[in-house]
Amino acid sequence: MSGAGDIHFPCQYVERTFTIAIDIGGTLAKVVFSPIDSQILKFYTIETERIQKFVKLLHSIIDEYNDGLYDNVRIVATGGGAYKFYDLLTKEFSKIKDIERIDEMQCLIKGLDVFIHEIPDEVFTYSDQDGAKDVRLPPEDSTQTYPYILVNIGSGVSILKVDAPSTFTRVGGSSLGGGTLWGLLSLITGAQTYDQMLDWTREGDNANVDMLVGDIYGNDYGKIGLKSSNIASSFGKVFQNRRNSVSRPNSSGLSDSRNNVAGPHTTSHADIDNRNKRFKNPDICKSLLYAISNNIGQIAYLQAKVHNVQNIYFGGSYIRGHLTTMNTLSYAINFWSQGTKQAFFLKHEGYLGAMGAFLDH
Amino acid sequence: MSGAGDIHFPCQYVERTFTIAIDIGGTLAKVVFSPIDSQILKFYTIETERIQKFVKLLHSIIDEYNDGLYDNVRIVATGGGAYKFYDLLTKEFSKIKDIERIDEMQCLIKGLDVFIHEIPDEVFTYSDQDGAKDVRLPPEDSTQTYPYILVNIGSGVSILKVDAPSTFTRVGGSSLGGGTLWGLLSLITGAQTYDQMLDWTREGDNANVDMLVGDIYGNDYGKIGLKSSNIASSFGKVFQNRRNSVSRPNSSGLSDSRNNVAGPHTTSHADIDNRNKRFKNPDICKSLLYAISNNIGQIAYLQAKVHNVQNIYFGGSYIRGHLTTMNTLSYAINFWSQGTKQAFFLKHEGYLGAMGAFLDH
Repeated sequence: MSGAGDIHFPCQYVERTFTIAIDIGGTLAKVVFSPIDSQILKFYTIETERIQKFVKLLHSIIDEYNDGLYDNVRIVATGGGAYKFYDLLTKEFSKIKDIERIDEMQCLIKGLDVFIHEIPDEVFTYSDQDGAKDVRLPPEDSTQTYPYILVNIGSGVSILKVDAPSTFTRVGGSSLGGGTLWGLLSLITGAQTYDQMLDWTREGDNANVDMLVGDIYGNDYGKIGLKSSNIASSFGKVFQNRRNSVSRPNSSGLSDSRNNVAGPHTTSHADIDNRNKRFKNPDICKSLLYAISNNIGQIAYLQAKVHNVQNIYFGGSYIRGHLTTMNTLSYAINFWSQGTKQAFFLKHEGYLGAMGAFLDH
Repeated sequence: MSGAGDIHFPCQYVERTFTIAIDIGGTLAKVVFSPIDSQILKFYTIETERIQKFVKLLHSIIDEYNDGLYDNVRIVATGGGAYKFYDLLTKEFSKIKDIERIDEMQCLIKGLDVFIHEIPDEVFTYSDQDGAKDVRLPPEDSTQTYPYILVNIGSGVSILKVDAPSTFTRVGGSSLGGGTLWGLLSLITGAQTYDQMLDWTREGDNANVDMLVGDIYGNDYGKIGLKSSNIASSFGKVFQNRRNSVSRPNSSGLSDSRNNVAGPHTTSHADIDNRNKRFKNPDICKSLLYAISNNIGQIAYLQAKVHNVQNIYFGGSYIRGHLTTMNTLSYAINFWSQGTKQAFFLKHEGYLGAMGAFLDH
C-alpha cells in the first residue's frame, strides 16, 4: 500500500448516498470518496490552481463510480477553497442540490481522530535510526490519547491542541511551511516539480551552504552543548562566499560599522549564474528542507511545552512520506524535549481534512 | 549619534591599559576600544571572512590610538572566532603577551547588562505606529529588570534567559537568522550588499509572492481570527505560479495522489531567468525579511512564555537599526502575547558580545 493508497473501511460508513469529500487548500485540492456498496476509501489530489481540472476530476469520479448519476451525490467541502470557489462549485454541480461546507480545523481533528482510533497500520513513528514503527490502535473508549497536538503542514502550518474528540483550539501556526520550501527552492533551482527537489535532497550535503558550529568555533562549542556538526546558520555560507566582496575603508583605514559592507548596487543574471554554479541545487535543497522541518519541529515542541502535551501528530501534504523530512521533525521533537515528547506520522497525512469532511454525517 | 556611534562612558572604566575587545562571529567581527585617557568608546565591524583585514584594522587602531605601542595593549576576545582564529591572532600579535578568551554567552549578558543599566538613551521600543521610544535607565540596584530574555540574532539565533547579572541559561536558538536571510536573498537576487537588499525591502510588496489568508479563503477566516491580509504561507505563490505546470493524469483521468504533480525533470537558466522576471527582487526581499523576523519573534515569544518572562531584548547585527525588521519583531511579540510581553531594542545591538568582553576586567 502506498502512502495514499485505498483504505478498507468499516461498513457502517457505507450507504446509498454517494458522498464525495473535498478539501481545497492553498496549494493542493484533495478528494476522498467510497464507491457505492464498497468498503474502500479512495484518495486523490490535484493542484488547486488547476481548479477546472479538479472539477473535471469530480465529474469523472461520478461517471466512473456512480454511473454518471447525480441525484444521490453529496459533496462535502472544506478548506479555504470551499469558500473561495463556492460559486464556481455550485454552478458546476448545479444538479446537486447543495454543497455542504464544514470548518477546516474541525475536519482536520475529526479526520485525525478516525485515523488514530479506527484505521489499523495508519499511525507510525519514524527515525532514520529505528526506521518506521507502526503504532497499534488504542483500546476502544481509551482516553489515553488526549490531549495531543496536531501540526498540520500544508502551504502554511496550523498547530491545534486537541483535548477531546471534538474539543480543540488552534494555538498557533507559522507561515514557514510547504509553500515556503517549494517556493524558495523553485525560485533558486528552477525545478518545476516536488519530485525533482526531493530527489535532489537525497544527494545533497547541506554543509556546503550551511554555517556549522565548527565553521565558527573551529570545533564543538562544548560549554553550551553544541556540537561541531550542528547547524548554526542555515545558508550562512552563501552571502559570506559571494563573488567580488567589496568593503570600503575610509582614509584612516578604519571602516564605519554600518558602511563597511557596502559595495556596488547593481546585479546581473551573470552574477546569479555564477552564484548558482558555486552552490549546487542538491545542497541547497537539503539545507532548506532541514531548515523548514527543524523550525516546524521546534515550534511544535514549544507549543507542546507551553500546553503541557506529550504526543505530537504531524499531518499535511508537506510530508509526502519523505524520510528525511520525518526524521528531521522527529529529531527536533526528541532533541528539544530531551526524549519526553513523541512525534507521530500518518500514512494518509495529506487527507486529514478531506477524511474529516467525508465522515461528517 | 548613529546606531553604532561613539559612547561617552563613565571614567571608572578608563585606565592605562589599552584594552581592545573583539567579538569574532560567524559573519561579522566586531571591535570595541577606548582611546587612552578618553571617556569615549569606539565601535567597528568588519566581515569575518576578511580576517587579515581585521588583523590590519587592529594594528591600525593600536597605531592611531596608542602611538603604535604594544606593551600596554590587552586583547580580549570572544565569539567562535576567538577559538577558530586563536593561533592566527597569537602569531599576529606576538608582541602582546596574552590574548584572553571569554565565553560568548557570558559576554553577551555582561554587555547587555551594562547597556541596560549604565548607558543612557541606549534601549528603546519601536513600532511603526508609535515610532522609537527611549527607555529610561532603571534606578540603581533595581531588580525589576530580571528575569529577561535576550534574543541575539547574528548569523544564527541564540536565546538566553537571564535571572541575575551573571546568572543565565541558553534556553534555545534557531538556525534561521541573519545568515539565512542574506544567504537566500543573495542567491535569489544576486545582490552583493546588505544595503541593496534592505533598500529593496522598502519598495517591495510581499503579497506578490506570499500566499495570504485571503488568497486561500477569498476573505477572512474569521472563525479562528485570521484576517484576509495575514500571511498564510511565505513564498506560497511562487511554486504555484511556475511556468509550464504539468500534471499527468492516467488513462482513467484520475491522477494518483503522489504523482499528479510530476513534470519534466530538467531545468535551465532560462527557466530561472523567466521566474526571476516574474517575481521581483523587492517583493522577494520584503517577504523573506518578514518571514525570518516573524519566525524569530514567534520563537522568542514561545520561549518567554515557557519561562514565564515578560521582557525580551533583541540584539545582534541582524537588526542593523532597520525599522521594518524591528516593527516585525515587535509586532510578533505583541501579537502572540496579546500585549503582555514587550520587545526592546538597542542602539549598539551588534556589540553586546564585544562590549561584554571589553568590560570583563
